[in-house]
Amino acid sequence: MKDNRPAPPVERPDLTLPCVILDRPQMAENIGSVARVMANFGLRELRIVNPRDGWPQERAWAMSSGAHWPLDNATIYETVAEAIADLNMVYATTARPRETHLPIRTPRQCADDSYDNAQKGLKTGLLFGAERAGLETFDIALCQSIVTIPVDPAFQSLNLSQAVNIVLYEWRLKIMDAPKAAFTQNFDKPAELDKLHGLYEHLERELDAAGFFFPPEKKESMQRNLRVALNRAHLTEQEVRTWRGVVTALVKGRGRALLKKDGN
Amino acid sequence: MKDNRPAPPVERPDLTLPCVILDRPQMAENIGSVARVMANFGLRELRIVNPRDGWPQERAWAMSSGAHWPLDNATIYETVAEAIADLNMVYATTARPRETHLPIRTPRQCADDSYDNAQKGLKTGLLFGAERAGLETFDIALCQSIVTIPVDPAFQSLNLSQAVNIVLYEWRLKIMDAPKAAFTQNFDKPAELDKLHGLYEHLERELDAAGFFFPPEKKESMQRNLRVALNRAHLTEQEVRTWRGVVTALVKGRGRALLKKDGN
Repeated sequence: MKDNRPAPPVERPDLTLPCVILDRPQMAENIGSVARVMANFGLRELRIVNPRDGWPQERAWAMSSGAHWPLDNATIYETVAEAIADLNMVYATTARPRETHLPIRTPRQCADDSYDNAQKGLKTGLLFGAERAGLETFDIALCQSIVTIPVDPAFQSLNLSQAVNIVLYEWRLKIMDAPKAAFTQNFDKPAELDKLHGLYEHLERELDAAGFFFPPEKKESMQRNLRVALNRAHLTEQEVRTWRGVVTALVKGRGRALLKKDGN
Repeated sequence: MKDNRPAPPVERPDLTLPCVILDRPQMAENIGSVARVMANFGLRELRIVNPRDGWPQERAWAMSSGAHWPLDNATIYETVAEAIADLNMVYATTARPRETHLPIRTPRQCADDSYDNAQKGLKTGLLFGAERAGLETFDIALCQSIVTIPVDPAFQSLNLSQAVNIVLYEWRLKIMDAPKAAFTQNFDKPAELDKLHGLYEHLERELDAAGFFFPPEKKESMQRNLRVALNRAHLTEQEVRTWRGVVTALVKGRGRALLKKDGN
C-alpha cells in the first residue's frame, strides 16, 4: 500500500531496537506473520527457539508478504536461555502470569520500559511462547517482566502473531510519540465566517423566494437550524464555493428545465 | 479448532457495541482471524460485503479457533452502503487517507469516539477494506472519519486481521479504563446512514437534472466532495428531513416562481 505523506522521522539511530524471540513456534505461517508485523512496526531482529518444523521453512516467507528481512536474518537457538543470553531485559508475553512474582506490565507499559531501555543502550527482548502451550514457567523465570494483553477473559486464545502485533504496535506508538504525531495532515482550514455567512444568506434568499419559510413566524428558527447543521461541517472556503454552486444549480438549472418542459 | 468455553457474557449492557464490517474480503482465513480477534476483544457483530469466495466458507470457521459466534451470525451485503445503512457513525480504516477531507483518527482516538458513541446509544461501524485493494474512495466518502494505523512508511502492508486487531485492542483498553461517564446532555442522535444516503441521492439527482456535474468525468469526485462535507455535520434525522425539504424547495419553488415570471 502506498502512502504519500512524508515519512515520520522514526529511524532513531540513538535507539537500541528490541528483538523479537519466538519460543518453539509450531506454524511457519505464524513466523511469517510475525516477520510482517515486525516490518510494519520497524523492528528487524528475529530469534527463534526450536521451531517445531525446523528452519528455514518456505511457508514463513510466503506468509511474510514481502517482509523477508527478519526471516533472512533470523537466528535459531536450542533454549530460551541461549536466545536471550546477550540481552539486558526480556519481557515475556503470556496470558497466564502464574506464580512467578514478576512485575506484570501492559503492552503500553512494556513499550515505555523498552523505550527507556533503548535510550540507555540496553538491549530488550520481547519473548512469545508457543501457539498452544505458551511459555514454560521455567523460561518465564528468566525474564525481567511479564506482559499481559488485556483480552476478554471469556476468550483469551490470542493468535501468536496478533500478540506480537499488539506489543509492537505499542512500541511503534511510543517511538513516534503518538499523541504529538496524531495525524493532522488531513486538516483543512475552515472558511472565514463571512464566507460561510455569504452561503447562508444566499441559501436563505433562495429559500425565501421558494416559499420555504412557512409559517413566517418560524422563519428565524428555521434559518437558525439550517445554519447550525452546516456550522458543524466546518466547510472550507472551497466547499463554501461548491455549496453556493449547488444552490445556484438547483434553483436555475431546474428552473430552466421546467421552463423548457412547460413549452418554451 | 474447537473451543468448549461458553460464549462470552455480555458485559456493559449500557454500551451499544460497535460492529466490524469487512468490505470484499478475499481470504476466508482472514475472516476467521477477524472473528477470533473480535472474540478476544469482546465484539460480536460481523458484517461482510461481497466476500470474494462466497459465504459461508469452512476455512473461516477453521481459522477462528473456536470464536464461532461472529461467523455464525455474520450478515452479508452487496454494498458498503447497505451494510452501514442502520449505523450512526462509521470509521474507515485505511493507510491512504487521500483527498476525502474527512477527519483522520488514530486507533486510540477512534476508540475514544466509539466509546462516546456507545454510551450515547449510537451504533458505530468499524470498516475495513479488501486485503490488497483496500477501500474504494467512494465507500470511504460514506463514512464519518478515517482511521490510520501508524505503521512504518517503509512497510505499510498490514494484514487485514492485524489491522482489525489493533483497532479492537484500543476499543478494549478504552472500555476497561473508562470511568462510567455521566450521560452527555444536549446530545442529538445522528440519523441512521441510510437516511443520509437518501438525502445525498435526492440532492445528486436534482443536481444531475440541473447539469451541475460538469464535466461528466468529474461527477464522481464532485459527488464525493459534497457527501464528505455533509458527513462531517452529523445531521440528525430531523435535519435530514429539513435538508430534503431545502432541496425540494429550491428546485420546485423557484421553478414555479420562474414559470410565473415568464408568463404563466
